[in-house]
Amino acid sequence: MNRRMVFYMLGKIMLLESVLLILPFVCGLIYRDTAIEFAYTIAISAFSGGLLTLISRPREKTIFAREGFAIVALAWIAMSAIGALPFVFSGVLPNYTEAFFETVSGFTTTGASVIKDVEVVPYSIHLWRSFTHWVGGMGVLVLVMAIVPNDTGRSMHIMRAEMPGPIIGKLVPRITTTAKILYLIYVFMTLIEMVLLLIGGMPLFDSVFHAFGTAGTGGFGMKSDGLAGYSPFCQWVIAIFMVLFGINFNIYYLMLMRKFKSIFKSEEMWTYFGIVAVSIGVITAYIYPRFDNLADAFRSSSFQVASIISTTGFTTADFNLWPSAAKAVLLLIMFIGACAGSTAGGIKVSRVIILYKQIKANLRQMIHTRSISSVKFEGKTVDSATVINVTSYLCLYCLCFIVIFFSISIIDNFSIETNVSAAAACFNNIGPGFDKIGPASNYSCYSEISKWILSAAMLLGRLEILPMILLFAPSAWIKIKKIKKKRRI
Amino acid sequence: MNRRMVFYMLGKIMLLESVLLILPFVCGLIYRDTAIEFAYTIAISAFSGGLLTLISRPREKTIFAREGFAIVALAWIAMSAIGALPFVFSGVLPNYTEAFFETVSGFTTTGASVIKDVEVVPYSIHLWRSFTHWVGGMGVLVLVMAIVPNDTGRSMHIMRAEMPGPIIGKLVPRITTTAKILYLIYVFMTLIEMVLLLIGGMPLFDSVFHAFGTAGTGGFGMKSDGLAGYSPFCQWVIAIFMVLFGINFNIYYLMLMRKFKSIFKSEEMWTYFGIVAVSIGVITAYIYPRFDNLADAFRSSSFQVASIISTTGFTTADFNLWPSAAKAVLLLIMFIGACAGSTAGGIKVSRVIILYKQIKANLRQMIHTRSISSVKFEGKTVDSATVINVTSYLCLYCLCFIVIFFSISIIDNFSIETNVSAAAACFNNIGPGFDKIGPASNYSCYSEISKWILSAAMLLGRLEILPMILLFAPSAWIKIKKIKKKRRI
Repeated sequence: MNRRMVFYMLGKIMLLESVLLILPFVCGLIYRDTAIEFAYTIAISAFSGGLLTLISRPREKTIFAREGFAIVALAWIAMSAIGALPFVFSGVLPNYTEAFFETVSGFTTTGASVIKDVEVVPYSIHLWRSFTHWVGGMGVLVLVMAIVPNDTGRSMHIMRAEMPGPIIGKLVPRITTTAKILYLIYVFMTLIEMVLLLIGGMPLFDSVFHAFGTAGTGGFGMKSDGLAGYSPFCQWVIAIFMVLFGINFNIYYLMLMRKFKSIFKSEEMWTYFGIVAVSIGVITAYIYPRFDNLADAFRSSSFQVASIISTTGFTTADFNLWPSAAKAVLLLIMFIGACAGSTAGGIKVSRVIILYKQIKANLRQMIHTRSISSVKFEGKTVDSATVINVTSYLCLYCLCFIVIFFSISIIDNFSIETNVSAAAACFNNIGPGFDKIGPASNYSCYSEISKWILSAAMLLGRLEILPMILLFAPSAWIKIKKIKKKRRI
Repeated sequence: MNRRMVFYMLGKIMLLESVLLILPFVCGLIYRDTAIEFAYTIAISAFSGGLLTLISRPREKTIFAREGFAIVALAWIAMSAIGALPFVFSGVLPNYTEAFFETVSGFTTTGASVIKDVEVVPYSIHLWRSFTHWVGGMGVLVLVMAIVPNDTGRSMHIMRAEMPGPIIGKLVPRITTTAKILYLIYVFMTLIEMVLLLIGGMPLFDSVFHAFGTAGTGGFGMKSDGLAGYSPFCQWVIAIFMVLFGINFNIYYLMLMRKFKSIFKSEEMWTYFGIVAVSIGVITAYIYPRFDNLADAFRSSSFQVASIISTTGFTTADFNLWPSAAKAVLLLIMFIGACAGSTAGGIKVSRVIILYKQIKANLRQMIHTRSISSVKFEGKTVDSATVINVTSYLCLYCLCFIVIFFSISIIDNFSIETNVSAAAACFNNIGPGFDKIGPASNYSCYSEISKWILSAAMLLGRLEILPMILLFAPSAWIKIKKIKKKRRI
């Protein structure tokens, strides 16, 4: 592996983080709360990042799949490790484990919190929590590619490692331009939501906070009752934007290019809308008796479905108290997640479609032994490598889920419902679960070790497993070096 | 499809059932309880079976995969439909839905019961419950092939549809001989267990009852406290035999042939033993504080692990009250199940091994893009068709599990723990679950519709999904006919 290149990029990421930290620092100056704590963090981040780039300036600039995976995995860990410092310095979360959990939860857009009383947290810390969602949503390295001049070559491999979904499409031939376009769409949509929330009567700070959280499909809250206190208009705005941020961003690019035909043919988008509509319908029917009128039940169910399928995790009601059918629907869409190429987590609708079609094709072949059936997705035949890739991903996904659930169950003696939903909510980057970690509660009940396991689960989920596993595969670090040595000979 | 052949075989199965029903009928005569009810059922079964064989004597005797699947699926439904009658006639379960549930649970060796008080059930009915386990364990159609002269040709397809596991090996070239050998081993092992239980001081009837239940890995109980009332020796005998009946029966054949080398090389068997040992170790550590001494904790955990991994479902303790770590281990081994080619349910150890190796091979390929890795199992390279088969099976398995869980959740408003474990316990043919359907309880709390869904789940699980799905695929019934017509022209 080209280690120098990996650490060089890591240094750049740290430098970038020091720039990102300026936003909460300024906020701290304005609200006169925790500016100095952010200043310390900026200094630490800038110094270590600068040092790393200096000492590991690479000779070769090529990046292959391996390097891409390693850069992304290490970058996310480093970002979280440094991003946790303001929480510790400010005393909001004096325990580093909890601070790290909160930061990982932020960057991975999970939104699972360990802060017991969010209403007393300083403004600048709130802004940082929410801003981590926004940065983590589209991806830290996509941001690097969008703003830093492209000097790395083959950065496609980085993009592939960070962007969710089975097939990564470049919008335009140049990867930096693609990254720029994606971020421009992202900024633009966040701004529109912010303005709409302001129009709906939400205070400025709250609008920024929630727009960041929605865009990244994060879900950190700043009130103990979630979003229940805001006007129905604001709740609808957020619900609709949660669904919108769950759509593949290619769709928005196609919209900009006025290629409406391609949009109407998008199988993934329509399936996603279909799942959203059916889920809202079923849940509304089940929770209707608990509400005064149909409109409230409909709004509540729409908001919750949008929040869970987009893996955001905002809440307007304690769905932990809903009937089991409604909870079963939520648990199901927790795993499905939204579209590939969006800021959401989960298995992704496109993978679910390919899996479903593959099962159907297999069954057909079993019955009519002579027929040969291929899987089609978005009008194109899916090659067998992608099919194997997707089915193997599901197996790996199940394995990881079992290991996570199992590890926390061994340590914390909570109900199966609590532990299953904690594993699911962290691994799928959602946030709230059921029972002990329901919307009215938080993750502080878990032990230290479980918090580290759940932090790892969030990173695994956000980066779609492979980069994180590669990090712990010694063969990835060693063997390649040998191959290189041989080549030099 | 060769429909005449399918219905002809179905008639034969019904005739066979009328012969099987003679055992509880004789028992009824001895204990003077429900002999007449069994006599009625024998008459109905013999009459309808005889009629069916007469009117649908086939012209062609060939059986392809399609026919094999259809025969097995229909045979299991018909057996259960008729087998439910004694429960209704005797008034033990006057409701036909409940009687059907109980019979399906018997034949599929699930052991989930809806009888509220098992201690007042007549002896002959108890014997029938237990006997359905024994017959269902090795397979109804394997029995047909073992005792009826082979006049059907290509019966391999039937065997494949009924025997669990990804790869079916014939022991000897002739399929009828294989079936005979399997049943001889099965009878012999059941007898040994029966004798050992008698030596341990268990009454004769109870020994027969529990030996049948262990052999089929069923799990119906005849006492309200399960097996807790019997001596530790008897509990150990049953625990060990549950593990033994979870081993691939090929191993016993190899033992008879004195091929000990092949036995020692069996990857699946050793992995199975490994999982059993680790599970017992972990659970013993967790439940130790609840017991007076280590021996009791060890026996209790060994018994429960053997019972759950072999998907039997006998209980000596209410594991519903154990700590969540112990419950998590049990939930995990519920899904794994025992070896292929045994009488147990679940995903099967061999599939788990292949999946795990496939994941590893995939990861290796991701990291070292140039290397090509193949999956080896039992010393042989697994061809890619089998790998795709196994991964697709897992996807289909997940899909079925989700649909079952979801359907019962929509109907019955129980906790997620109850509904998840009910779906898992029925689909994997185990029996007891957690919470409302724990060892100290039964399935009578579920609504009528859920009982039908769970009955379907048990059949899906026992027959490994495909035969049941084929039954509802209209194309399997129609298109082939068209192809045949074309051929005749």
